[in-house]
Amino acid sequence: MNNQLEKLRETAPLVHSITNYVVMNNTANALLAIGASPIMAHAQKEVADMVHIVHALVVNIGTLDEYWVESMALASQRALELGKPWVLDPVGAGATPYRNETLRHLIGFKPTVIRGNASEILSLANVAVASRGVDSANQSEEALEAGKQLATQLGCVVCISGATDYIMDATRVASVGNGHEWMPKITGMGCTASVMVGAFLGVEKDPFEATLAAMTVMGVAGELAAQEAAGPGSLQMHFYDALFSLTDKQLVDMAKVTRNATS
Amino acid sequence: MNNQLEKLRETAPLVHSITNYVVMNNTANALLAIGASPIMAHAQKEVADMVHIVHALVVNIGTLDEYWVESMALASQRALELGKPWVLDPVGAGATPYRNETLRHLIGFKPTVIRGNASEILSLANVAVASRGVDSANQSEEALEAGKQLATQLGCVVCISGATDYIMDATRVASVGNGHEWMPKITGMGCTASVMVGAFLGVEKDPFEATLAAMTVMGVAGELAAQEAAGPGSLQMHFYDALFSLTDKQLVDMAKVTRNATS
Amino acid sequence: MNNQLEKLRETAPLVHSITNYVVMNNTANALLAIGASPIMAHAQKEVADMVHIVHALVVNIGTLDEYWVESMALASQRALELGKPWVLDPVGAGATPYRNETLRHLIGFKPTVIRGNASEILSLANVAVASRGVDSANQSEEALEAGKQLATQLGCVVCISGATDYIMDATRVASVGNGHEWMPKITGMGCTASVMVGAFLGVEKDPFEATLAAMTVMGVAGELAAQEAAGPGSLQMHFYDALFSLTDKQLVDMAKVTRNATS
Repeated sequence: MNNQLEKLRETAPLVHSITNYVVMNNTANALLAIGASPIMAHAQKEVADMVHIVHALVVNIGTLDEYWVESMALASQRALELGKPWVLDPVGAGATPYRNETLRHLIGFKPTVIRGNASEILSLANVAVASRGVDSANQSEEALEAGKQLATQLGCVVCISGATDYIMDATRVASVGNGHEWMPKITGMGCTASVMVGAFLGVEKDPFEATLAAMTVMGVAGELAAQEAAGPGSLQMHFYDALFSLTDKQLVDMAKVTRNATS
Repeated sequence: MNNQLEKLRETAPLVHSITNYVVMNNTANALLAIGASPIMAHAQKEVADMVHIVHALVVNIGTLDEYWVESMALASQRALELGKPWVLDPVGAGATPYRNETLRHLIGFKPTVIRGNASEILSLANVAVASRGVDSANQSEEALEAGKQLATQLGCVVCISGATDYIMDATRVASVGNGHEWMPKITGMGCTASVMVGAFLGVEKDPFEATLAAMTVMGVAGELAAQEAAGPGSLQMHFYDALFSLTDKQLVDMAKVTRNATS
Repeated sequence: MNNQLEKLRETAPLVHSITNYVVMNNTANALLAIGASPIMAHAQKEVADMVHIVHALVVNIGTLDEYWVESMALASQRALELGKPWVLDPVGAGATPYRNETLRHLIGFKPTVIRGNASEILSLANVAVASRGVDSANQSEEALEAGKQLATQLGCVVCISGATDYIMDATRVASVGNGHEWMPKITGMGCTASVMVGAFLGVEKDPFEATLAAMTVMGVAGELAAQEAAGPGSLQMHFYDALFSLTDKQLVDMAKVTRNATS
C-alpha cells in the first residue's frame, strides 16, 4: 500500500463532490473519517472557482437534472483545463435516454477514473465506444471487456465494483476481493467508493494505484465493520469507525489484491 | 400476512421516489433493508421514462418547489396512464397555500394510496372534498371521518399514521397498534412508511392489504429496534437491522392488527 | 442554565431551516432529539408564509445556488419584518466570490446570530466591516477581534465555534470549553450547532444567552456521546441519544462556561 493512507491523512486532500442528494451525507462522513476534507458545491456561479482550490473532483449523476448537469459540465471542464484529476460515477447509466445523453457529454471532459457497477459500465461502453466488440461468454466477462475498451478509448482508469472489484487501464488489470455481502444493502456505498477514489487521487499521482488503494480501503473497512454489525444499519455506523481507525498495516494484512498485468 | 414479506424479498420491487431532501437517505436504506430496490430521480427530462421501469411510485411534497412539483405531476400522470400504483405523502398539508394548491393538482392524477398524519389528512380533506361533513366528537374521530370521505371521493386507500395507524378505503377500515413512542423523534419515519407502502404495492395487488402490511412492518420493526435502543439515534440504526432480519413469523406473532369492516 | 432546556421541551419551538443538502437529515434529527420541531422549506412561493408560523429561522449557505439564495433572502427579509430571530451560518465564507456576494446581501436583513468557524467569521468580517482594524498576535485572536467588530457593526451576536467556542455581542464575551475532538470528524456538527441556536432563540429572548445555552448543549452532549463511542460513526448515533436524555442538571454539572464581560 506504500503508506498511501498515511500520506492521505497528512495531506487531508480537499475533495469536491457534485453528487446526488441521497448520499451526500454518507460520502462526506466517509471522507472525514478516512482523513480527507469534503466540499459540496454546485452553483453555476461558483463551481469552476471551487475546482481551483481542491485536490480532486467527483461527479456523480445519481439525481441529475438540467441545472446540475450544466454545473457538472462546468466543473469537469475546469478540471480538464487545470489538469486536476476527476472521477465520474455514472449512476443509473442506461436507465433513461437522458442519462445516456448526459454521460456522452461529460466523458468529453476526459474523466481520470470512471467507477460503476457492471451494468453501468456496460451501458456506458455502449454509449461511448464507437464499434464495441463483444465476444464474451457471460455478462461478467462482457463487463470486463467493456471496461477495458472504455479505458483504452478514453485513456482513463475504469473500476467495476461488485463482489470482486476490477480496476483497469489500457495496459493493467487488478482485482480486489475484499468487502462484505451486506454492503450493497446500504445506499451509497458505491458513491462512497467514488469519493474515496477522489481522496486517493489527491495524494497518489498514478490513478490506477489511487483507485486500487481506494477500493482496498472500502473492502477492508467493510470487513472490519461487518465483524461488529448485526445488519446494514449497524454496518454503516461501524464502517465510519473502521475508516477512522484503519491503519496501513491492516490494509497490508487484509488486502486480497491480485495484479494481472495484461497486454 | 400471507407471506407478503417473503414475496417482497423474492421480487425486490423497484420503488421510484420523488421525495424530500431530508429523508432520501433514510427511505433508500429502509427499502434496501426490507429487500426492495430504491430509485430516486426527478429530472423533467427523465421522470416519466423512469416510471416505465418501476413497480411503484412515491410522491412526497416535503421540500417541494416549482421545478419538483412539475416533476411530481409528470411522474404521477404517467403512473396513472400506465396503471401503476402510486403513493402520495402530503407532508405539511395546510401549512401554506402553496402546499394546498400543489396537493389539489396532484390528487387529480388519482393516487392509489395517501398516507399522512391526522393533521395532514384533515387538511387534505378540506382541500379535496367538496362539501365535507364534519360530525365528530374530537379531532381524532374527525380525522378518521375525513380520511373516510377522502378515500370514498378519490377512490383510493387512506392511511392515517400515529400512535395507532388507521387504514381505510370506501368499505373497509383496519388499525395497527404497533410502534414505539420514540419513532416520531426520528425524522422521516412517516416518509419511510410511505415508501414501505410503495414496496408492498409492488407485490400485493390489493392496495388496502399492501398498506396494512407496510404499516405492520413499520410498527413491528420499530418495536424490535426499541428493545435494543437507548434513544432515537440508536433506534434508527436498529430499525434498519430489524427490517433486514424481519420474518413473516415475527410479523404474525407481533402484529396488533384489528380489522373492522364497516359500511 | 436557568432551566432553558426544560423550557425548550415544553415549548417544542418550530425551527425553520433553509440549509444545505448534506446536513438536513442530521439537523432535523438533532432538533427532534432535543425536543424542538424542525421544518425545512425553500420554495419561493411559500418560504415567507412559513416564516409566519415558526419560532426561529436558520439560513445556512452550504450548498447555495441562485434559486436558494433568493429563497434565503425572502425568508430572512420576512423574519426581519416580523421581528423573528434568525441565525446565519456562513458556510465556506471566503471560498468563492459568489459566497461573499451572497453573504453581503443576506447580512442586510440583520441576522440575530451569526455562527461559524474562525475562518468563516474572519472572511465574513472582511466582507462586512468597512474598515476593519486588525491588531492581533495570532489567527485565533484575530478571529475574536473580527467577531467582536462584526457583532458591534451588525448589532448581532457572533459565535465562533472550535475547540473552544466563543459567544460575543457588542458588550459581552463568553466561552464554552466543552466538546470532543471527534466532533469535527462528523459532517454537519457546525450546522447542527446553528439549528440548536435557533431552537433556544425560540424560548430565550436574549440571543446571547440563547447562543450560550445552545453551544453548551452541543459540547456536553458531544462529551456524553464520546464516552460511549469508538469513532465518529458511533459518536453521531450516541450524540442523538445524549441530546434526547440530556437534563438541565447534567448541563449545570458539566458546563465549562466562562463569562468575561468586556466592552
